[in-house]
Formats: sequence, C-alpha cells, structure tokens
Amino acid sequence: MRRDGRQENEIRPLTITPHYLAEVPGSCFIEMGRTKVICAVSIEEQVPPFLKNSGGGWLTAEYAMLPMSTPRRNARESVQGRQKGRTLEIQRLIGRSLRAVTDLSGFGERTVFVDCDVIQADGGTRTAAITGSFVALVEFFKYLRDKGEIENIPVFDSVAAISVGIVDGAVLLDLDYCEDSEAEVDANFVMTGNGKLIEVQATAERSPFGKKMLDGMIETAEKGIAELTVRQKAVLGVWK
Amino acid sequence: MRRDGRQENEIRPLTITPHYLAEVPGSCFIEMGRTKVICAVSIEEQVPPFLKNSGGGWLTAEYAMLPMSTPRRNARESVQGRQKGRTLEIQRLIGRSLRAVTDLSGFGERTVFVDCDVIQADGGTRTAAITGSFVALVEFFKYLRDKGEIENIPVFDSVAAISVGIVDGAVLLDLDYCEDSEAEVDANFVMTGNGKLIEVQATAERSPFGKKMLDGMIETAEKGIAELTVRQKAVLGVWK
Amino acid sequence: MRRDGRQENEIRPLTITPHYLAEVPGSCFIEMGRTKVICAVSIEEQVPPFLKNSGGGWLTAEYAMLPMSTPRRNARESVQGRQKGRTLEIQRLIGRSLRAVTDLSGFGERTVFVDCDVIQADGGTRTAAITGSFVALVEFFKYLRDKGEIENIPVFDSVAAISVGIVDGAVLLDLDYCEDSEAEVDANFVMTGNGKLIEVQATAERSPFGKKMLDGMIETAEKGIAELTVRQKAVLGVWK
Amino acid sequence: MRRDGRQENEIRPLTITPHYLAEVPGSCFIEMGRTKVICAVSIEEQVPPFLKNSGGGWLTAEYAMLPMSTPRRNARESVQGRQKGRTLEIQRLIGRSLRAVTDLSGFGERTVFVDCDVIQADGGTRTAAITGSFVALVEFFKYLRDKGEIENIPVFDSVAAISVGIVDGAVLLDLDYCEDSEAEVDANFVMTGNGKLIEVQATAERSPFGKKMLDGMIETAEKGIAELTVRQKAVLGVWK
Amino acid sequence: MRRDGRQENEIRPLTITPHYLAEVPGSCFIEMGRTKVICAVSIEEQVPPFLKNSGGGWLTAEYAMLPMSTPRRNARESVQGRQKGRTLEIQRLIGRSLRAVTDLSGFGERTVFVDCDVIQADGGTRTAAITGSFVALVEFFKYLRDKGEIENIPVFDSVAAISVGIVDGAVLLDLDYCEDSEAEVDANFVMTGNGKLIEVQATAERSPFGKKMLDGMIETAEKGIAELTVRQKAVLGVWK
Amino acid sequence: MRRDGRQENEIRPLTITPHYLAEVPGSCFIEMGRTKVICAVSIEEQVPPFLKNSGGGWLTAEYAMLPMSTPRRNARESVQGRQKGRTLEIQRLIGRSLRAVTDLSGFGERTVFVDCDVIQADGGTRTAAITGSFVALVEFFKYLRDKGEIENIPVFDSVAAISVGIVDGAVLLDLDYCEDSEAEVDANFVMTGNGKLIEVQATAERSPFGKKMLDGMIETAEKGIAELTVRQKAVLGVWK
Repeated sequence: MRRDGRQENEIRPLTITPHYLAEVPGSCFIEMGRTKVICAVSIEEQVPPFLKNSGGGWLTAEYAMLPMSTPRRNARESVQGRQKGRTLEIQRLIGRSLRAVTDLSGFGERTVFVDCDVIQADGGTRTAAITGSFVALVEFFKYLRDKGEIENIPVFDSVAAISVGIVDGAVLLDLDYCEDSEAEVDANFVMTGNGKLIEVQATAERSPFGKKMLDGMIETAEKGIAELTVRQKAVLGVWK
Repeated sequence: MRRDGRQENEIRPLTITPHYLAEVPGSCFIEMGRTKVICAVSIEEQVPPFLKNSGGGWLTAEYAMLPMSTPRRNARESVQGRQKGRTLEIQRLIGRSLRAVTDLSGFGERTVFVDCDVIQADGGTRTAAITGSFVALVEFFKYLRDKGEIENIPVFDSVAAISVGIVDGAVLLDLDYCEDSEAEVDANFVMTGNGKLIEVQATAERSPFGKKMLDGMIETAEKGIAELTVRQKAVLGVWK
Repeated sequence: MRRDGRQENEIRPLTITPHYLAEVPGSCFIEMGRTKVICAVSIEEQVPPFLKNSGGGWLTAEYAMLPMSTPRRNARESVQGRQKGRTLEIQRLIGRSLRAVTDLSGFGERTVFVDCDVIQADGGTRTAAITGSFVALVEFFKYLRDKGEIENIPVFDSVAAISVGIVDGAVLLDLDYCEDSEAEVDANFVMTGNGKLIEVQATAERSPFGKKMLDGMIETAEKGIAELTVRQKAVLGVWK
Repeated sequence: MRRDGRQENEIRPLTITPHYLAEVPGSCFIEMGRTKVICAVSIEEQVPPFLKNSGGGWLTAEYAMLPMSTPRRNARESVQGRQKGRTLEIQRLIGRSLRAVTDLSGFGERTVFVDCDVIQADGGTRTAAITGSFVALVEFFKYLRDKGEIENIPVFDSVAAISVGIVDGAVLLDLDYCEDSEAEVDANFVMTGNGKLIEVQATAERSPFGKKMLDGMIETAEKGIAELTVRQKAVLGVWK
Repeated sequence: MRRDGRQENEIRPLTITPHYLAEVPGSCFIEMGRTKVICAVSIEEQVPPFLKNSGGGWLTAEYAMLPMSTPRRNARESVQGRQKGRTLEIQRLIGRSLRAVTDLSGFGERTVFVDCDVIQADGGTRTAAITGSFVALVEFFKYLRDKGEIENIPVFDSVAAISVGIVDGAVLLDLDYCEDSEAEVDANFVMTGNGKLIEVQATAERSPFGKKMLDGMIETAEKGIAELTVRQKAVLGVWK
Repeated sequence: MRRDGRQENEIRPLTITPHYLAEVPGSCFIEMGRTKVICAVSIEEQVPPFLKNSGGGWLTAEYAMLPMSTPRRNARESVQGRQKGRTLEIQRLIGRSLRAVTDLSGFGERTVFVDCDVIQADGGTRTAAITGSFVALVEFFKYLRDKGEIENIPVFDSVAAISVGIVDGAVLLDLDYCEDSEAEVDANFVMTGNGKLIEVQATAERSPFGKKMLDGMIETAEKGIAELTVRQKAVLGVWK
C-alpha cells in the first residue's frame, strides 16, 4: 500500500469542475489529489505563418506554474524573462496531445489557445493539464457550435494522460510528488478514449529498464486512462 | 442604483479564504465580486544588495494575471519575455503598501516575497491584492512565530485598499470593470486599519477634477476601507 | 528655512529653454534647480493596434536618465536589456498627464512621441519632465500648424507638475534629492493651468498621514503649479 | 525497399571520427547518412547551485543547428535572443541520456559540458548527437585519466540512440528527413550497450497507435542500437 | 622564422572546399592553418524596411563561433540571449566587405544571407570568413543564373581579407592565435582582386604606431591578398 | 569650399566645456559643429573576471544617442531590449582608444567607466566622444589624485580622433552628416598627442580606394588631430 493509502494501480481522487472561469466559455478546474490546474480555451483570428492561406487552423498550448504552487517558491518566468526548458517541453506536449484528436480543418483559419495554469503542484501536473484541457476544449467547441460558428465538434476522440513510475521495483499509477522523486523510472502516457497511444515518454531516472517493465507500465496506464475517460465523459455528456 | 444593484458607496460581496494553498503557511484567496486573487507569502535567506549586512530585511511583491483572467485573452508575460509597465507599477504599489505597515527589522536579514496571482479580473485587482496580501502576510508571520523564528508579529497596523471613481458625476465605491471603463476619474486608496492614508493615486481619465471631488472620494474610500478592515480582523482573529 | 535658503512653499530657480535641439521643432531644456531634462517631441505615421482605423491619434512618452545624471552611476537600461519599473511608471505618468490636456483626434491617425531625457537629477525629474514636455508639445503643434498639417493646436489647457513632501512635519514644495530622501510623505501633483487636478500620487514613505495633511499638500502644490503655469505661458506666448 | 535503397530495419551509413577538433581532447564528428554532428566535451570548475558542497558533479548538454544545416535556412537562435522549445527539449534529452550512464561522483565537484552542433541535418540529429557524444565523453574521460585527474572512467555502460517510425504502416529504422515528415508515428529510443532502455519517446504524428506497434518499434530499435554499440566500441577500444 | 616555420610574409596552408554542404547551392569550407569556417549563402524574399519598393536588394552576414572552436569553451550566444559586441562587429564587417563588390540591384528586391560559422578558431576567423564567403557567394549566384533567376553574376570584382600584425617589431602576415595575442599592432585588410582597399582596420594593442609601419603592413597585406585571389579564382573558374 | 563654408582640411567650430555635470568630477561637454556629446567618467570597485586578483584595473566605455539627437527619431535601445551593433562597435572603439594611452595598473583593481551620451548628432559622434572622453578622463584622474587615491595621472599621452572622407574625389576633414552620407570612402583616425596612430578604420562606402588615397587621408587627419590636441591641452592645463 502507498503512503497515502492508495493501491498501486489506483489514481488519486479526481474532480473536474467545468465552466470554472465565469466569463470563459471553455474552462475547467481539474484536481487530482493535491495537484490543481486551471485549463482555459480561447481562439484568435490568425494562424502561424506556415498555415497562412491553407484554410486550416492551429491549436497551441501554454503552461505555467504559480510561483507558490510548490512549497518551495519557484521564480516567476516573466521576471526571469524567459520560459524554462521544462515549461516549453510540457506545453509542447499538451499542444501535440490535443492536436492528435482535433480536426484542425474544423474551425477555419484560426488558432485555438489552451492555457494551463497550475495552482497547486503535487506531481502529475502535465498529465492533469492534458486531461483537463480536453474537457475545456470540448466545452469551448460546444460554445462555438451553439453560436453557429462551427457545425460539428471537430474532435475525433477523447484524450487523457496519466503518469506511471517504478518505485522500489513496483509499478505505481499516478505518482504524487514524493513518489515521483523516488522513482527509478518515470513515464507519462497520453491515450485516446478508445485505448490507443498518442504519446509515450519513459525515462530511466536511476536505472535503465527492460522492455517487460515498459509493458507493465503501459498496462497500468491503460487502466488509469480508462478511468479518466469515464470521468471526462461524465462531465461532458454527449458531445458528438 | 448601480447596474449590479449596489448603492454608490457599497463594496462588492467579499470572501477571504485563508490557508488557500495546502502547503503554503501564508496564503489566502480573496474574492471581491468577480475579481479573484490568490495571495501567497514566502521568505528567502537573502536581501537586496543595498541591505547586505544591515541586519534589516526586505519585503517585495510580484503580481500577474492569468492569460484568461479576462474574457479577452491577454498575452502571457513569460512568453513575451518581459513584464508590462502596468504589472511593474502594480507590484511596486503592493510592496510599498505592505512595507508601510511592516517592521522590516523584525525578521532578520531576509526577504519576504508576496505573490499575487489574479485568477479572475473584474476591476480592482490591485486593491484586492493588497487587502488579501495583508491577511496572507499576517498568517505567514504567525507561522514564523509558532515555529519560534520570530517573537512578535512585525506589523504595526493593518492595511487595506479600495478603488473609488467618478462615473456620470457620482462617486462610486469599489468599481467593477465596466464602471472603471466609464469613469471620468479613477482612484485607488491604501489605508491603515486606524484610518490613515498610505497611498493615494487619483487620475483624471477624461476630465480634470477639483479638490472637492477628491475630498468626496477619500470620504467614500474611508467607509470602504473600514469595512475591509473589519473583515480582515474577522479572518485573522487576535494577532497582536 | 531650507538648506538651500528657500521658503517652505518656494520652488527652485526655473529656466525653460525652448528649441533646445537645433533640428527638432518641438524641444526644450528645463532646469529646476540642479535637475535638468531635455524634452523632445516627434510624430510617427502609425498608431497602436487598438486605434487602427479609428481616425484618432495617440500620444506616448519615454523617459530615461543618463547613467551619470546622479553622482552615483546608475546602470544603463539598454545594457541591462530592460527598462526598470520606476522608468516605466514615470513614462506612463508623463504620457497620461499630457494626454489629459490633448485632443487626440486633432492630428490624424498618428502617434506623438515625447522623449524626456534627464541630464542631471536632483529630485523632481518626473515633474520637471511633465512641465517641460508641455512646452515642447505646444511648440511642436505650432510647427505642425505653421506647416499646414493641422488647423488648431489640439490642446485643451496647459499642464504642469510639482512635488510636495512632508519633512520633519513641514510641508515643503519642490523637493530636491536630499529633502526627498528624508521625506515622511512624498507626493506628486499634476494640474491644469486653470487649477484642476489631473493626477495625485501621494505615498507614505515612513508614516501614514491624515486627510488634513493631504489638504495642506494640495494647497502648497496649487501655489507651485500656478507659478509654473505663468512661466510656461511666458515661454509659449499666445498659442490658442 | 526504401527510397535510398535501405531495408526497413537498416541504419544509414555511419562514420564516427574521434578527435575531430584539433585542440579539444574529447570531440568527435558523427555522420549518419547526410546527418552530421560535431560533439565536443569540456569541463568547468563549478556546479549548479543545488550541488554546491555535495562533492558530486554534473553533466549538461547544449545543442544547436547551423542556420544552413537544412536546405531552408532556419534563423540563428542567438539573433532571436532565445533558444527554441525544440532545442531545449533536445539538449535536455542528450544530457539526461548521458547522465544515465555516468557516475556523477566520479570527477569531483565540476560540470561536464557536452556541445552538439549540427552541421548538416537530414533527420535523426538528436539520436546522432547522443551516439556521438558518448564517444566524445569517453575520449574526454580517458584524457582526464591520462592526466591523472581521475582514476577510472566514470561510465557504467555505453549509450546510443536511434529513431524508428511508422511510414505507410511499416516500421522503419533510422528515418531520414523525408521519411520523418511522412511518418504516422515517430519514436526515439535511447538504450545502453547491454540492451536496457534509458528513454522512450513515441509520438503519434498522424494517427494513434496500439501497444503492438510500440513493441515492433522497440524490437527494431534494439537491432539498430546493437549496431551502433559495436561501432562505438570499435572507435573507443577498451576503455574500462 | 616564425614558430610554425613560416616566413614573415607567408600565409598559412589554405584549402577552399566549395559545395561543402550537400543541399546548399552556395557553400564552402575554408581552412587557413587550423582556422576553419563554413560559409553558406541563401536568399529570402524580403528586404529591410528602408529598401521596400526600391527595386534593389540587400546582402547581410551572420557570424558565430562554435563553443568549442577554441580550446577554452566560450559560452553559446543563444544561451546568453544576445550576440556579443565582437560578433556583431565581425558580421557587420563581413556584410560590408561583400556588399562593396556586389551589385545590389542585380537580384531583385531580395536579401542574400551569408552565414559564417567557425568550426575551429586559431586567429584570423573574420578574414577567412570574408575570403570563403566570396567563393560561396559566387557559387550561389552561379546557381541562380543556372536556374534562370538572374542573367549575370552581380559581382564587380573579387574580395578577400587577411590579417597583418606587428610582433616584436616585425610585420607578420596572417597571424595565428598565439601571434595575435602577442602583437603590438593588429590589422585586418579587405581588398579587391585588382588590389584596391575596401576596408582597413588597424589597432594599436600595446603601442601606438607610425604611418610608416602602416605602409609596411599594407604592402605585406597586398602580397597575401594577391595569393588568396589566385586561390579563389582557381576554385571558382571563369565566372564573369 | 564646403557647404558650410569650411576649407577641405578645416575642422568644425569646437567647444570643450569641462566639469559640465555639477556633481561628476570627471565630465565634459564637447561640441563639434552641431554634434554634441556629454562625456562622464566614474569608477567602480570591481574588475571583469579575467582581471580578478591581477592587481590591475580596467577601463570600459558606453555610448548612446538620445532618440531625438537626430532629426528623425531613432528608437530607444532600452525599449528595444538590446544595444545595436553600431552602438557596441562604437563603445568598443572608445574603450580601446582610451586604454591605449592609459596605464591600467595605475588605479588599483578597479574599473573606470566612460559614458558618452550624444545629445545632438551631425556626423562624427564617435570621434567627438573619444576627444571629449580624454578630457573627462584626465579631469577624473586629477580628482582622484587630489583626493590622494592615486599619486600620478596614469596616462601616457593624450588621445583624440577625427573623421576624414572622400567626397567627389576630394579629401574632407571632419565630415558632417550630409557629407558623410555622400562619402565614397569614410575613415576614422585615432591618434596620440605626439602624432602616433592608435586606430585606423577606413571603409569604402561606394568604391574601393588605393593606397595613395589612404595616405592623403592620414595626412589630413594628422592636421586635424594636431588641432584637437592643442584644444585639449588648453582645457586641461598642465596635468603631467
């Protein structure tokens, strides 16, 4: 049993609060244990240069942690004048994950912005951000549809993400910060609602691992993602 | 009567939630109408160069708005590589206001950081940030005292802030965003618990104003600050 | 009596030299005691995005101090790669003050730039910059009118600014650097030629102050501004 | 058969030239097909703050592409004033991969810098950079050992990396740029000389993929890494 | 005789390898002794603002050193967020030198980019960059001509550059790094193929020098440039 | 005769006002025709890393133009976040020129800062900056000597600078902005008081030039420098 009483393949308590921001049509607040992230979606009337006059749109994400989202303050990136490598890596992952289930030709030559701001960080912020952003994204597309701007929700499938790690040889699902710090192997899986992989990132923090270990981690991740998918659907209702 | 049903000298519904962040001893969530700000306090073992070996400490504040805290997305400052002038101006004001009631020699040669992050912005974010930060600051000093790091709470008096504006010739207290956009004169007042002024900032947005008008605004502000002070005390209990 | 022999409500010796820069139609050199600022006005054929196709124009200001304008060198902001918070705050104040008396629809969809560069700093640089910039601005508009680009000088009233402070309980007008460092309360007032307030900024540097004190400071400021206004008019002649 | 005549599980022609830079003890030039990278290792007498007084060292990597390493010029990051997200992501991967096989306590409180500069880019620059950097790193440690600065080569195992992708449903090893652009799934594998995984990064560029597909990619990667390992050993000789 | 056996007025062994980068029509690799530079030319469909609608084009250069091009690592400028003064100075010199022999009206309203990346630095990198860039530039224009984009090679004359220095009173041609560090006077000469001066830069590093000394340096430079010109012609063949 | 009535080898009217800044011991205002520069010298108790514990000091210069020093406003570098290449090139030249006549071991392990701020620019700002800075530097050293901080003025010789150009085939001394824009060749010479060269920078703006032309330019420069030297001495009096 884990320090917080969870089974090895058990996710933390999850709450998804849609419409969290009063005046933002596509927003939600996702809490996985003590990790808390605000996800908010908006759209702008322009696309990156490489898409000009293509008729297609783009989706991009930005991620940040509040300085005090962790017990030990981390410096504000705006004060330092640049986003850290970790930040850029995470926001690129969020964008890629959402683009993988989005029909970019479905909302004109515009750019969808997904903002993920971490209020409290206790491990798994990037995976919570992906899981929550998907909810905010569909809410936002519903809003565009209700306004008559688009006909259909341009989303192929749902997407969710979860972390898995090896701690003392055991495969643990949805690591909190303490577990993450002790993990020998640390992995993040992004999967669709019907169980396909979108992104696999596994890193040996302490000792290289075998293929079998990876298999075990994927299996555990699949269980977690399935649960997240159920919860996303419960919040979103029928949206296709 | 105002659009939202308030009297001219009535503040918006106010909620102050102390200990908002699980692992941050000095934090609170302040809501004034739809304006919502997280205030969090921390300390670091160093001071700015001009205080080295002075024995005294420092207090500084940082302020930011989430990109989607407003209905229309505002670009992330970390992505733009610099804080805007408005941001710097506000965080300087917050720092000055708190320093005016803090005994900087009361916590050693260390720097207190006050982080104010706006989750939702509907006018009056800087004043809410000051009012909330004071609560977070005292909570933080209580924590240091309980740990035995300091003997007394190094705070002379309480501090709170409120906006006042002239809209269609009438003096309105605690403007929301719409009222603020229409105001002919826009002012912010920072005052202590026993009614003294710490900072006055009044700006003619549309038409210059007379001294009498300023008097009316101060009077109205005094009423608002008095109410905020009561609420701060209710949350903090006896702290001196 | 003050260290330099002035009465409490006496301004420092003032000189305003219009046309200071040979090839700049709107420029002046303002000296208030040892504080010396070059003010220069120019115009560009574009406006900020929010004014595009509005038909109206904009006015913006930039402020800087030479590294050696103070006895102790202050680092060059271009070398540091960013303007300091203080700088941004001051140049925003200058811009706001001038816009408050300028008809922005009076010179087409263009932007007026006001550059204030401090050659020597002995307190009151921001107020000198405002007072001097007004002269440079009107000179510039005269030039545009003489060229036939505009019909009338698009200025409603004159504007000037002065500092007032409380030192040892006394209200002093137009503080020099030493007085400013010792002030318990430090205030800047921006007023129109016919005695209305445009901006009030009062800060308790050491001890909070009562409303009566503020009244005293305003009264003293009014006297100072009236004198500055006379001097501006003497330089500008009839311009309306 | 592939456009360039290779089998699906065949790597491109590989050349590793150690001691490529005349005066740099740990350097090599690695060419995999048309992808060419200079790897160079150096050391500095300091560590990041979190390691001060720990007795242990650090290893970090930097990566860049020459503007003309691709047929279409890509802007110089020094001119743009910041490294792109892709760059930071890659150099973090290189650093992590090398640290996973390096005994960081084996060279004192110092930092090893690994510089990877891409002269020509035709896909697989990050994997070539890892494979080549390992050679440069061991050469550098040999040099330190020969100078008597360290006793043993502080490296646990060798490390190499290869890309695998799914193109038209087929699993291809070591993609060139064209193949990479067409890939439905794109993956990079970092493995040790004795066949353990250090990092797995698999991304669905076009369509989500099943676990079986991932298995196939790992298997193919293993074959490629085994070949790279042989080549690294051939260049390095006996180094343990 | 010099440390490396050269005569005082003898250049180092020179190799110019055109078409060094596989997919870049205008590129070369120039080696002067241990100094090695990749020069690559490309073109973009835009010009600086001051040339818009002028019908004429522009040519600009960028220069960088690999961090490990010198035995002692020099920090990567992209990591530091800005190009150093030395870098800007050199790339401005390269651009000026090439523009002096190029007919900027000969390739439409476009900008030619010249990238000079130093792989190994042993003195004289800026002069090698100029000499090599000229070859890459002509190769690039040949390519444009062969594609039918331009009719003639828009180049008036060839250009090459060499360093000369005074070491222990003797005039030395083409200094290597050691000689350069010891030089009392350090000069760079840029000249055309028919012996005219394009740029003279002579600096007293240790002791001021007389006009006669300058004459001696020019004479020596002329000899060196003549040799470089022959070598450029040998590589380029008939191009006019 | 030239547009402004000068002979070809005649410098513009020159005024050097020492002690221009009230509280800066080493400052001067130099005016050459309409070009006006404030030069100010200060010292800091630190040296660049490469001089730590060397016992020797350093001298460095910074240069900037006021935005309105030219009829057409040039953007403020602090707003743009970086100094331009031209600026860096000029301030490096000023620093080098002054170091060439300064005994860096003569004022301890400290750094002398030379600030050159252009108030009005009409060609020749860099040469005026050098000529004026020398005066400010000696004034500053006198001040240090009078305070007893140094025993002797650590300056070997005087230094001054002048521009020379070829306009319509004629060699002109001390070009103003218009002449500079039309020059076929543009050169700057830095020389010592006893006629030795410190720096020669000659650039063919339009057409390459022969050695003879360079000889003519040097001769003309010598005449100009001799006059500047007389003027510097007149201001400085006996300082050795």
